[in-house]
Amino acid sequence: MMIYERVALLGLGLIASSMGHAMKAAGLAGEITGHARSAETREAAREVGFCDRICETAAEAVEGADLVVLAVPVGAMGEIAAAIAPHLKPGATVTDVGSVKQAVITAVGPHIPPGVCFIPGHPLAGTEHSGPRSGFATLFHNRWCLLIDDHAEDAAMARLRALWEGMGANVDVMDAAHHDLVLAVVSHTPHLIAYTMVGVAEHVRRVSDSEIIKYSASGFRDFTRIAASDPTMWRDIFLTNKEAVLDILGRFSEELFALQRAIRTEDGEHLHDYFTRTRAIRRSIIEAGQDTSAADFGRGVAR
Amino acid sequence: MMIYERVALLGLGLIASSMGHAMKAAGLAGEITGHARSAETREAAREVGFCDRICETAAEAVEGADLVVLAVPVGAMGEIAAAIAPHLKPGATVTDVGSVKQAVITAVGPHIPPGVCFIPGHPLAGTEHSGPRSGFATLFHNRWCLLIDDHAEDAAMARLRALWEGMGANVDVMDAAHHDLVLAVVSHTPHLIAYTMVGVAEHVRRVSDSEIIKYSASGFRDFTRIAASDPTMWRDIFLTNKEAVLDILGRFSEELFALQRAIRTEDGEHLHDYFTRTRAIRRSIIEAGQDTSAADFGRGVAR
Repeated sequence: MMIYERVALLGLGLIASSMGHAMKAAGLAGEITGHARSAETREAAREVGFCDRICETAAEAVEGADLVVLAVPVGAMGEIAAAIAPHLKPGATVTDVGSVKQAVITAVGPHIPPGVCFIPGHPLAGTEHSGPRSGFATLFHNRWCLLIDDHAEDAAMARLRALWEGMGANVDVMDAAHHDLVLAVVSHTPHLIAYTMVGVAEHVRRVSDSEIIKYSASGFRDFTRIAASDPTMWRDIFLTNKEAVLDILGRFSEELFALQRAIRTEDGEHLHDYFTRTRAIRRSIIEAGQDTSAADFGRGVAR
Repeated sequence: MMIYERVALLGLGLIASSMGHAMKAAGLAGEITGHARSAETREAAREVGFCDRICETAAEAVEGADLVVLAVPVGAMGEIAAAIAPHLKPGATVTDVGSVKQAVITAVGPHIPPGVCFIPGHPLAGTEHSGPRSGFATLFHNRWCLLIDDHAEDAAMARLRALWEGMGANVDVMDAAHHDLVLAVVSHTPHLIAYTMVGVAEHVRRVSDSEIIKYSASGFRDFTRIAASDPTMWRDIFLTNKEAVLDILGRFSEELFALQRAIRTEDGEHLHDYFTRTRAIRRSIIEAGQDTSAADFGRGVAR
């Protein structure tokens, strides 16, 4: 069912290419235009074919579009919003897919002209791969997309929600500050910690690189997958969600020191109680359908 | 090809049950006996059928065994070694599957009678599930098993190596202290950190439990899987590999503080460089065949 006559995707990485594939698969858009800053990315996107038309400029891509999706790194949102502002069609909706919401609103909001509706968004989906060749139509299936209700018109909000639901996502609406805190807990801080652990492993001189790699299935492997995500995107996330991440990191250090102290003082009861409590959370996630109880798809996670 | 006439499995959890299935699948053992302390576990093991005979006592299970596998939590190794010592057959080999090696050697070594060979071992394989119903024959396929060369006879070592290779594992031999350091890096510290992060999430009052669970696919989910492992096993690991874990934790805190400072001072270059370096390690792991480049099996890891 067609929801928007014309959709413009700006930035043609994993999320935009998956949106292109998903919209085409479900017939949600009449025409999909696309633009990326790099000629190489535009060429790759042309080859893959998830847009009907790849444009040389962002201005050209948004001309006549009913929906404009900003899918560039968070740090580049302000610049692209300024570039397209004079070319937006009256009545159009602008949305984004950035991992941080308050900073995007600050950067993009002032450029949105009267008569255009800005609804910030964030699909909680992705893989450790990036670029126009990494997208696939089912990326958003059964994943959550969070939309920010910044006094958006009801009709515009309902239409954008229908698009995401058409691509298989579940939609929740919340305010920007809460979004940034929740993401700091479930995503940003875990990523920083994974990056840190991988960096530590690289520096322990008494353990050879080949040992780290050979024996990585023992738990470390999942950290390396998380830590393989796009460096530019993650730099921008930490710089723009600084307060919430520093808040959660502070709590993390406190908890870690308490466990470290339990190890040093050999307080086995403290450790056992802690590990028992965390197990319960896992069960809830499986029950909520956000993972399967199949043992890591047989990849094997050793101790 | 039969390698041992009779194998005794002591402790009937994930590793022992997988060994039972794997030995039966490849015909590596003439008879497999088994014992677990809890009657419930023994009954479940009988139902599943990965042993030929389940015994009421450990002494009975090891009677006449050519290979005895200690597959109990690290903290229980000394006690079971003392219990079976008088019943071991001359010429038998005793091995274990504990995640820590120096502490196991200290606990088990003194009980091993003359004429019996003790070769500590550690298969780097597992899942987040535990118990006699969680095992499967292919758990060790393409995984590493580390054996400790503590002046073992060459013939006994070659035979044990053949058993592990027969179950699909690759075998490496190293000394116990090095094993414990390597595992602190690739497994023990990552697990402690995952436990910590899951604990933090549970405590952030402004984020509801249901939000943590719904949005867990954003990176946090992998931490919860790691943090769902058996609490008793992990308590024992941290208590018995204390020095190496505290060493690596100290380095981890140093690195984390450096990244935290880069966020606070908005040093984007430091962050970008760090995240670029860690990406390279991931590539090596995929090349080494310890994971696949398939995007998280399509489960989707969002940012």
